[in-house]
Amino acid sequence: MYKMNSYLKKMYCLRCGSQYEIKDYHTGCPSCLKDGYPVNLSFKYEGKQKIRKDKSRMFRYQDFLPYESFPTLGEGNTPVIEVKRLADNLNLNKVYIKNEFQNPTGSHKDRMSPFAVARAVSLGKKCVVAASSGNAGASLAAYAAAAGIKCKIITTRKMNPIWKKAIELPGAELVLMNTPQERWPYMQKMVEQEDWYPVTNFVTPPVGSNPFGIQGYKTISYEIYEELSNEMPHFILIPSCRADLLWGVYEGFKDLFDFGLIQDIPRLIAVEPFPRISKILDGEDYRNTFLGDSSSTVSIGGDTVTYQAIAAIKLSKGTASNIVQNKVAEYRLELAKLGFYLESSAATIIGSLAELVADQTVPQGASVLMIATSNGYKDVP
Amino acid sequence: MYKMNSYLKKMYCLRCGSQYEIKDYHTGCPSCLKDGYPVNLSFKYEGKQKIRKDKSRMFRYQDFLPYESFPTLGEGNTPVIEVKRLADNLNLNKVYIKNEFQNPTGSHKDRMSPFAVARAVSLGKKCVVAASSGNAGASLAAYAAAAGIKCKIITTRKMNPIWKKAIELPGAELVLMNTPQERWPYMQKMVEQEDWYPVTNFVTPPVGSNPFGIQGYKTISYEIYEELSNEMPHFILIPSCRADLLWGVYEGFKDLFDFGLIQDIPRLIAVEPFPRISKILDGEDYRNTFLGDSSSTVSIGGDTVTYQAIAAIKLSKGTASNIVQNKVAEYRLELAKLGFYLESSAATIIGSLAELVADQTVPQGASVLMIATSNGYKDVP
Repeated sequence: MYKMNSYLKKMYCLRCGSQYEIKDYHTGCPSCLKDGYPVNLSFKYEGKQKIRKDKSRMFRYQDFLPYESFPTLGEGNTPVIEVKRLADNLNLNKVYIKNEFQNPTGSHKDRMSPFAVARAVSLGKKCVVAASSGNAGASLAAYAAAAGIKCKIITTRKMNPIWKKAIELPGAELVLMNTPQERWPYMQKMVEQEDWYPVTNFVTPPVGSNPFGIQGYKTISYEIYEELSNEMPHFILIPSCRADLLWGVYEGFKDLFDFGLIQDIPRLIAVEPFPRISKILDGEDYRNTFLGDSSSTVSIGGDTVTYQAIAAIKLSKGTASNIVQNKVAEYRLELAKLGFYLESSAATIIGSLAELVADQTVPQGASVLMIATSNGYKDVP
Repeated sequence: MYKMNSYLKKMYCLRCGSQYEIKDYHTGCPSCLKDGYPVNLSFKYEGKQKIRKDKSRMFRYQDFLPYESFPTLGEGNTPVIEVKRLADNLNLNKVYIKNEFQNPTGSHKDRMSPFAVARAVSLGKKCVVAASSGNAGASLAAYAAAAGIKCKIITTRKMNPIWKKAIELPGAELVLMNTPQERWPYMQKMVEQEDWYPVTNFVTPPVGSNPFGIQGYKTISYEIYEELSNEMPHFILIPSCRADLLWGVYEGFKDLFDFGLIQDIPRLIAVEPFPRISKILDGEDYRNTFLGDSSSTVSIGGDTVTYQAIAAIKLSKGTASNIVQNKVAEYRLELAKLGFYLESSAATIIGSLAELVADQTVPQGASVLMIATSNGYKDVP
């Protein structure tokens, strides 16, 4: 059995601040939802939390995570690599890439799955479920296998055979729908009728993924702090869709700020395939549907945004940045020629960086860290 | 420019012990070769070498490596994961998997490439070359790109498109031959005529890969020691072909033994697709050609063996273990169901472990560590 962190005290709503006891609120804050606003919850911890310097990987930060034990396959502790050639070319002080693609199943999702699975097992659930275009599914399949529970991944017929194999080989069952939208009502039905434990979103407009899982992303910020303490980046670029990662990284830096360990929270920049978050920052309602082309960047595709995306950006004084969809192959190539072989959706970071420097959102002499979410082997060659 | 380690004093022959000045001996020990024995060289270090506890990844062990600076993409420091379910099923004390597939390009080769590339750049070479069925090529392509030099990968037309993409995107050039055997004379010609710097073997019978590169594999042993010091495994299983990895791991443990840090050198077990090393241990000449089926495990295929393979096994009191070729898909499945998604060649470790336990080479109650060399995304799904 996995042990809950005794410092974990309450859940709270990102929008209205209402506090709730630690439970599962799969459709987000009950109060906001009644008012028509789907909003994710997060957690409050109390007590003498410490970085456990004698432990490695995510166990090092167990005081800040919902479960202090969880199934592990070697996730976390990914390297931060300085890319001098890129900094020189763009007149920046430092450019770093954090290699989240070096997680066990090849993406950042491996920081979420352990806590979602630990929660499911703690509740006695026999099956976890996720709606996924690939990486979340491959990750959850592996961690469910490691924990000895069942896993269902709801996706569309378009999922590429590379991800299908990575999901099915560990024993997860693929449920293939005709459209991404059909996934939500089916998943909701199964959560309610079959007691499957949901790891990703299933409501529309979405709230985002399972909050226990999202807590795992905080460890990315802790690791950046431990590695770069004296030279913290001013900007952090994060490929984003429903922005679980973006929120988790924000919350990690917020913890470090609250503990007095950093002076400023880095500005978080959501990298998106077409204007969604950008439109909301310009005044649109976050509950709208946004149409655009994300065919070559499926891992950050989708026509919806979440409250947590906007919250992370506003609280960190960040912004959103759109890439040029027909340049994605060039972005992949540019990163590969620096030695980084990334999935198309992940390679968007370098297109975004060039745009941000060009329009002076990122000024000359700034330091930037880009999160490289997933490896290039996920794309069909 | 990359800096050579000042503790590096000499090279020596694994077979005759002759010492040589630090240079490039691409065809191995000149003295043994004259007698008809192709044998790789290694290095002698002298001085107060220390683990640099303030540094991370392979830089932590720079005192024990030929170059103290080298191009880095985040290689090394891979996790060691205990697999309790497997230990229980097999009546073993501990079973560990070391996740070498979490290296930047998804295989252990990322420990070799940095030193081979550092050496090439130090010599002023403009191009590195490797004969590779996939992983060495993908790795070298990335590190050559990171260091800003050219890379040629000599392979056969059979190389799968997944590896081709991973090699070509970083800018390396693929040279496609009709048979694996044709690779050697072509590579030799290019090394001699075009001044390409060879990172892998090109002679027949083979000596093994570039000795500067092989030194990187020693860090695997140092990491195992730092992580498991009180519970060192009795046996280490390593998928093997020309056994660069096997020799490097042996030498790492030998260092730890010589420094009084471990009491015993773990027994190294070469996992091979069909009897090659096994036949030599039974008395055959290591310079022979060995025929057998390795079609489903190309990364450890090939019809030759090296002196370094036999030396690592004899000096560590280890052995070789053959897997059942038509069970490779089952091995992959068995590991995936534990959460480890591996390339077929890498998944052979679990088939070998079952055999070794069944024939009592690995006795009940023993502790075993298996090196998981490469991730499952390398196989065509």
